[in-house]
Amino acid sequence: MQNFTFYAPTKIIFGRDTIPQIGEALAADGISRVVLVAGGGSIYKNGVHEAVTGSLEKHGIRFAEIGGVRSNPRLSKLRDVITLLKGEKAEAVLAVGGGSVFDTAKAAAMGALYDGDVWDFFCGKAAVKEALPVYGVLTASGTSSEMNNTAVVTREDDESKWAIASPVLVPKVSVIDPSVQATLPESQTVSGGIDAVTHVLEAYVISCPGLDFVQDYCETLIRAMMRRIPQLVKNPADYEARAELAWCCSLAHNGLSNVGRPVRGDFASHRIEHSLSAIFDVPHGTGLAIIMPAWMEYVYRDAEPVFERLAASVFGIRDGEDRALRGIRALREYFRSLGSPVTLREVGVAKADLPRIADNAAKLAPLGAVRKIEREDILRILETAW
Amino acid sequence: MQNFTFYAPTKIIFGRDTIPQIGEALAADGISRVVLVAGGGSIYKNGVHEAVTGSLEKHGIRFAEIGGVRSNPRLSKLRDVITLLKGEKAEAVLAVGGGSVFDTAKAAAMGALYDGDVWDFFCGKAAVKEALPVYGVLTASGTSSEMNNTAVVTREDDESKWAIASPVLVPKVSVIDPSVQATLPESQTVSGGIDAVTHVLEAYVISCPGLDFVQDYCETLIRAMMRRIPQLVKNPADYEARAELAWCCSLAHNGLSNVGRPVRGDFASHRIEHSLSAIFDVPHGTGLAIIMPAWMEYVYRDAEPVFERLAASVFGIRDGEDRALRGIRALREYFRSLGSPVTLREVGVAKADLPRIADNAAKLAPLGAVRKIEREDILRILETAW
Repeated sequence: MQNFTFYAPTKIIFGRDTIPQIGEALAADGISRVVLVAGGGSIYKNGVHEAVTGSLEKHGIRFAEIGGVRSNPRLSKLRDVITLLKGEKAEAVLAVGGGSVFDTAKAAAMGALYDGDVWDFFCGKAAVKEALPVYGVLTASGTSSEMNNTAVVTREDDESKWAIASPVLVPKVSVIDPSVQATLPESQTVSGGIDAVTHVLEAYVISCPGLDFVQDYCETLIRAMMRRIPQLVKNPADYEARAELAWCCSLAHNGLSNVGRPVRGDFASHRIEHSLSAIFDVPHGTGLAIIMPAWMEYVYRDAEPVFERLAASVFGIRDGEDRALRGIRALREYFRSLGSPVTLREVGVAKADLPRIADNAAKLAPLGAVRKIEREDILRILETAW
Repeated sequence: MQNFTFYAPTKIIFGRDTIPQIGEALAADGISRVVLVAGGGSIYKNGVHEAVTGSLEKHGIRFAEIGGVRSNPRLSKLRDVITLLKGEKAEAVLAVGGGSVFDTAKAAAMGALYDGDVWDFFCGKAAVKEALPVYGVLTASGTSSEMNNTAVVTREDDESKWAIASPVLVPKVSVIDPSVQATLPESQTVSGGIDAVTHVLEAYVISCPGLDFVQDYCETLIRAMMRRIPQLVKNPADYEARAELAWCCSLAHNGLSNVGRPVRGDFASHRIEHSLSAIFDVPHGTGLAIIMPAWMEYVYRDAEPVFERLAASVFGIRDGEDRALRGIRALREYFRSLGSPVTLREVGVAKADLPRIADNAAKLAPLGAVRKIEREDILRILETAW
């Protein structure tokens, strides 16, 4: 086991009818003025907006609102949120939505205390030192943004979808009421679940001696999510399945899967997917269902024991030749069984587009840790994924 | 799954040679004056004291010291620590030791900001509202005190060993260098490991629908610890075993095992053991190896499916009659195989002493959740344990 730091300080308030607790949580921290950041509008239909604003009013918390954050959140919207935060002299940011809303709220929280342009943090021109405190009400599970230190934003003009991470970005309190996810579109449930499964896999593939428990933990998490996603495809209102999947999604990328490894994860698949979704606006989890198995097929020989272990423990493939490869194919078939696209063709990407995606991803090359990959490798992975 | 709150905000700095980071961690939080709380003296022999004080000096942090905290920590010592904290106008408490040192430091942190007697918090006369920030360097794993909100202290005059819990008691930063545990006495490694296994079991026995992942997680944790403890009995310097056991002990009682349950755990075994160790000064983990199987034998019919699941998943007992009971006996045999006493006789308790232990434990009756137990039940459990 390698040395590590673990820090996941978010207070999670989890369960049915917990959303009205958000006002009290803010008031307990002495917050009296927030900006509420929201997404495309579902919270106005399912009662979440009313529950949140009612709770804020009850606790005397003044708020301004900005909606319209979309999946694969954009820098232009982020700048609007920062302008509002500064104008309102907000003491905190309140995310009410899914991962994209949380990412935007977190990035805005650091932008609000910075005089320059917020993109400076993403491109390394400025270091994150402080941020407004972030609170949230989660309405779609997947990214774990509600419990981690990361935010991902796309700059539209050059299709850069980049990530920033800092301990100051970890939300103070996140309220997760799984029951409000019952009305999510099936594709969003599936995409969110796949995103979370791949978060664990990004860590899992980086093994070393002494990680027996951590690897077992990752497998337990993966198996639980893989059980629950199809249950929700069948019955979106299954509360126990919603609750368990939501909790597993939060745990999947809060740091627990990553402890003790030589590096915290590979993340080449995530980087390539970011380029895909920056250009083609594919849902992040869908992009990962396409990219990750292709990446695995490209690199698995560099970490064959861990891929064989995955095949055995998650897919029951314990005997015979090519167990690692058969496990990878079983993973792709599992994604397909959920109704997810698993090839680039299915999401409307032409073969001629592949070099453009590779160019975009190669801006951050070399990618990955199982194998360091460059533009040519990325292109081959994309060809497999096509 | 039931509603829950999860909050484990401690920053964990984990691994070889990490102790010199404690000064930086304190300085980063603006702390310039601490009281260092320590135990019986091993830290002066194994280099830990030198590493800690060197780090404090390097970062310009003034410190006063108080040693002599012993296992089953005493109220009299706690009061001494509080007096020193007040006299020194300490800005933080720094625990350097095992669970008893952490418990004392945490209890002292709240006592330092209170004008009355600290026992008021334990007996419910005062509510915990604030505490000095707590930092720590862990030198013996078991209690998870380094990552949770709980402190247990014994009032000598009436042998009350009682617990207090509050979010303000959770340590800010805990440094865990597993390599310094290589020189622990074998009995302490075993007792600490058993304590941690029983922490998970206290939660595990309280099941409900929707806990598939949480129960799997608990089993993964229990199996990992049960693998590692005998490895350390064989080779106390096995770093990978130390590291994995240390991390599992921290996770065992930081709240993750407890989420989603109707109540967070049973804890009747812990309460009875507290009475045992308050009167007879048995190591806590040893007491649990004696009490918990006896408690299980007394109550298992009230939660037979969960005890059958334990027998199957941890001990491979999947077929035949009396699986639950055979699993409980296998647990006791496992504790015995580690060299731990598993009966009260072995630790010098006379049969005539049992009513006194039962009287002590019954002060907090009814105990438990699998079955609510009273004095007469406790006495029968003690007879089985004898």
